[in-house]
Amino acid sequence: MIKSDQADFNFKAIGFVHSPYKKREDIPHRKNTDPSGYDNVAGTIELYEEFMDGLKDLEGFSHIILIFAFHLSLDNEKIYAHPPFDGKKRGVFATRSPHRPNPIGMTIVRLLDIKENIISVSGIDMLDGTPVLDIKPYTSRDRKENIRLGWLEDFNQRKK
Amino acid sequence: MIKSDQADFNFKAIGFVHSPYKKREDIPHRKNTDPSGYDNVAGTIELYEEFMDGLKDLEGFSHIILIFAFHLSLDNEKIYAHPPFDGKKRGVFATRSPHRPNPIGMTIVRLLDIKENIISVSGIDMLDGTPVLDIKPYTSRDRKENIRLGWLEDFNQRKK
Repeated sequence: MIKSDQADFNFKAIGFVHSPYKKREDIPHRKNTDPSGYDNVAGTIELYEEFMDGLKDLEGFSHIILIFAFHLSLDNEKIYAHPPFDGKKRGVFATRSPHRPNPIGMTIVRLLDIKENIISVSGIDMLDGTPVLDIKPYTSRDRKENIRLGWLEDFNQRKK
Repeated sequence: MIKSDQADFNFKAIGFVHSPYKKREDIPHRKNTDPSGYDNVAGTIELYEEFMDGLKDLEGFSHIILIFAFHLSLDNEKIYAHPPFDGKKRGVFATRSPHRPNPIGMTIVRLLDIKENIISVSGIDMLDGTPVLDIKPYTSRDRKENIRLGWLEDFNQRKK
């Protein structure tokens, strides 16, 4: 078996997020289970200027995928998570918890505007200052039909 | 301004992909612009055993998000990409090219089955042996309405 210490990867921030959420407690986690959750939360991505030219041709896409680092995540040994809107212990890969073996986040946001190295978006659910690792266009292949939501579905039904 | 060398992140593989695509040339890139592209391409994710318990509660989700390393990507200085199905030079962040500043990939696959540390999926578009960095459940928040596809839309119209 290949051991995980044989496969280490080093990534660098390409920019960072300006978000209305300045500290952890500001994030309204109840939005997490709402399909339109953070849709109206506006913010910007400030790209380091050396990467600015990579934004060419992005403006025609309605949505973009942000890959970022959960830079304040301290406990990456966790294999279980306790989502804030559910008291139960869940396998970490069945949650979007920031405390995970590799503290990588993924959020799809609406693209509003690009001016030089500043990207205006809505749908921000991350903290101010979050380091961005990658930006990708959201395509038809990312929009799945007939989805089932496992324990989240059970949770939503209990809520009714 | 924060310099990008002040923000380095180290991630480790949590497992790897078993894919029918053994080398780069095996990947049928024409599928990239098809919404149902690789939907029928089956494969498995072999998680290192130390992470197996993190899969608890995942089986109820129909789709999962795989975050992985483009481990064969050699040129990470590229700011432009030339997608295989379009001769034009595009900003790298407007493409899903593996040759990007941080060679991180993201693909949403259908979850078929989990047996211990082996996850069977369909929708595989990556190479055999690709190191997996993270697994997340696909939720309603990832399914966006009224999407626009920028240069991909232009490309699809020309194809007709």
